[in-house]
Amino acid sequence: MKDSRRRFEPAEYAARQAKTRLAMEKQGLDLLIVSDPSNMCWLTGFDGWSFYVHQCVVMGSQGELFWFGRGIDAPTAYLTTDLAQSEVITYPDHYVQSPEIHPMDYLAGIVKQRRVHTGKIGVEKDNYYFSARAMESLTHCLPDAQFVDATGLVNWQRAIKSPQEIIYMQRAGKVIEQVYQRIMQVAEPGMRKNELAAEILHAGTWGTTDYYGDYTAIVPLMGMGEEAAACHLTWDGTRLEQNNGMFLELAGAHNRYHCPVSRTLYFGEPSTKYRDIEKVIAESIEILLPLFKPGNTCGELAQTFFTHLHNHGYEKNNRCGYSIGMSYPPDWGERTMSLRANDPTILQAGMCFHFMPGMWFDDWGFEMTESITVTEQGGLCLANVPRQLLVK
Amino acid sequence: MKDSRRRFEPAEYAARQAKTRLAMEKQGLDLLIVSDPSNMCWLTGFDGWSFYVHQCVVMGSQGELFWFGRGIDAPTAYLTTDLAQSEVITYPDHYVQSPEIHPMDYLAGIVKQRRVHTGKIGVEKDNYYFSARAMESLTHCLPDAQFVDATGLVNWQRAIKSPQEIIYMQRAGKVIEQVYQRIMQVAEPGMRKNELAAEILHAGTWGTTDYYGDYTAIVPLMGMGEEAAACHLTWDGTRLEQNNGMFLELAGAHNRYHCPVSRTLYFGEPSTKYRDIEKVIAESIEILLPLFKPGNTCGELAQTFFTHLHNHGYEKNNRCGYSIGMSYPPDWGERTMSLRANDPTILQAGMCFHFMPGMWFDDWGFEMTESITVTEQGGLCLANVPRQLLVK
Repeated sequence: MKDSRRRFEPAEYAARQAKTRLAMEKQGLDLLIVSDPSNMCWLTGFDGWSFYVHQCVVMGSQGELFWFGRGIDAPTAYLTTDLAQSEVITYPDHYVQSPEIHPMDYLAGIVKQRRVHTGKIGVEKDNYYFSARAMESLTHCLPDAQFVDATGLVNWQRAIKSPQEIIYMQRAGKVIEQVYQRIMQVAEPGMRKNELAAEILHAGTWGTTDYYGDYTAIVPLMGMGEEAAACHLTWDGTRLEQNNGMFLELAGAHNRYHCPVSRTLYFGEPSTKYRDIEKVIAESIEILLPLFKPGNTCGELAQTFFTHLHNHGYEKNNRCGYSIGMSYPPDWGERTMSLRANDPTILQAGMCFHFMPGMWFDDWGFEMTESITVTEQGGLCLANVPRQLLVK
Repeated sequence: MKDSRRRFEPAEYAARQAKTRLAMEKQGLDLLIVSDPSNMCWLTGFDGWSFYVHQCVVMGSQGELFWFGRGIDAPTAYLTTDLAQSEVITYPDHYVQSPEIHPMDYLAGIVKQRRVHTGKIGVEKDNYYFSARAMESLTHCLPDAQFVDATGLVNWQRAIKSPQEIIYMQRAGKVIEQVYQRIMQVAEPGMRKNELAAEILHAGTWGTTDYYGDYTAIVPLMGMGEEAAACHLTWDGTRLEQNNGMFLELAGAHNRYHCPVSRTLYFGEPSTKYRDIEKVIAESIEILLPLFKPGNTCGELAQTFFTHLHNHGYEKNNRCGYSIGMSYPPDWGERTMSLRANDPTILQAGMCFHFMPGMWFDDWGFEMTESITVTEQGGLCLANVPRQLLVK
């Protein structure tokens, strides 16, 4: 690993691998094929935009641990991981996006060579970038293996953040603070939406003098007026309007760690409906924050929030938060715990959540969210962005 | 569809759907489940960053055509497609990222209700975002169907661009021209890499006065010095160095259409190895450009390029280009034709390629690429960026 690319000590990677092997043991897995780029990075440090082709980290219940990917991506593995050259195994370029042959056919050959082709093999059947065809190839080429769904196995090991991870998330928090400062400086009616997005991306990538801004796993999402009802819409070249509200779903990132913070921006004098929901959501954050402490469950927090909304005449039927940490596109969520009524996960110190009380109505929307880490003293916000409807 | 979100006339969408149904007929498909966000958008206009949860467009060989996704994303479908409300079908939020139930279980119920659950169903087994678990769910819930791999079926229909699509790609070309102008203005040794990335993202999103910049399906890739050997590396907070070269793999985007153009930037007086490869690659573009005309094959072009390299003492064993058009993360390639020796695809007018003569060596790299559309008169570059080693 190149020094400037080192984000964690070898001991931290070793601890992550050991923890994952323990989880494998509990599931009786002999081998684990990890295709999710976030899981690959968390286990080994591997960091590059090469997840558009098939690649994975392969881990045995014993010593086995190697990176498998396209030939031209091997240098990225040398620069960003501590794996020996012999543990960086590549497939030839004619396997890339070919209808006839599949990189997983090639991987199967490697797995056989290394004599780890029997027993129980875990694959991330519903994580990103592990396709139905990848599964078919492995099943076909490794008939002596028993494949088991290991979706989320590594993701769950990531739930409790180390002190160094919390530091990176707080740095991402500094980055998102800069982004909102820029927005308040430059946003104005008449500006094209893409111009505001350009400023957001500039501020988020520039970061602070001390902490560079990394790319976020989701691009800035924004919707104004009736478009604010569509919560995953991206910008176009239309203009921002006076007397209208716009949600901004944004994050800061540093070393692939994310700190999402959403706000709603209003040009002019906000109507009562905006002020009403602002008050209810601000109160809900005040009520929930102290509850982000060990022992409470995700379900309890969600229920407290939904009850608060209900008592004020609002209803929400989708989840109001999820676990966060390191991530790659297309999602900055960790895909483990969710803040929803039926999630029984018990909070532990070091877990991190995007508490996401976004409200979408038929023809408008409102978001005011916080990224929160669980501590013995209750929730700690990872960024300090003015918690209010942003009015200009 | 909202007027400001309309990118193509209803007739163009209808023609695309008809063309796709014809391809389905040839494969004997009764139903097609399209999960690739680029294919979904091309067929219906659907455009939002919601591909991190399961969603698809479902198309029958006859009239059937509906969007299927998460409840909160229905407004995006209303704003960006011409589908009737009854053709926007959603699954409840507790299906999102749940280990117990899967959105495809729910889709199977819909498919049964609509009585299209028997016969041959095409699924994109190796396109993005169609997971192994999605396949398992469908297979399990629709035992009367025969599932067929339709990876690339829609992608291939997209290969020849319409005049309106070429216009959008040329606008994306205007955007990338602005990006390189900005780079030449601001790049300097001592600058942090993220600061340069911030400028690139700002210029690329600002676009031109007339054409907004959309987000690109790949973030700016850059590597300097030894890191230039790692072709899919992204930025960090380290500084740009004097007397060193850096590859920049970038694209402009507009209305989701991409125009990738890569260049190499050098601070100081370039060493001979940079000047040598610059000359060879520039010549190769001059030689290949006229060959981008109907009748030639992808393989012939690739072979001509590899031979030219070989004659000048260089070897390249990976592909040197691929089809481009509309795209979503994680890749701006269309995943159909590749410029590689064994690709027999015959060029037709309106096809678009990223001709990608990137050269990666052990401890450095060089990229100088063009996006090209095939015309009767030969290849036409979609952008006009100075074709040289960028020296400052």
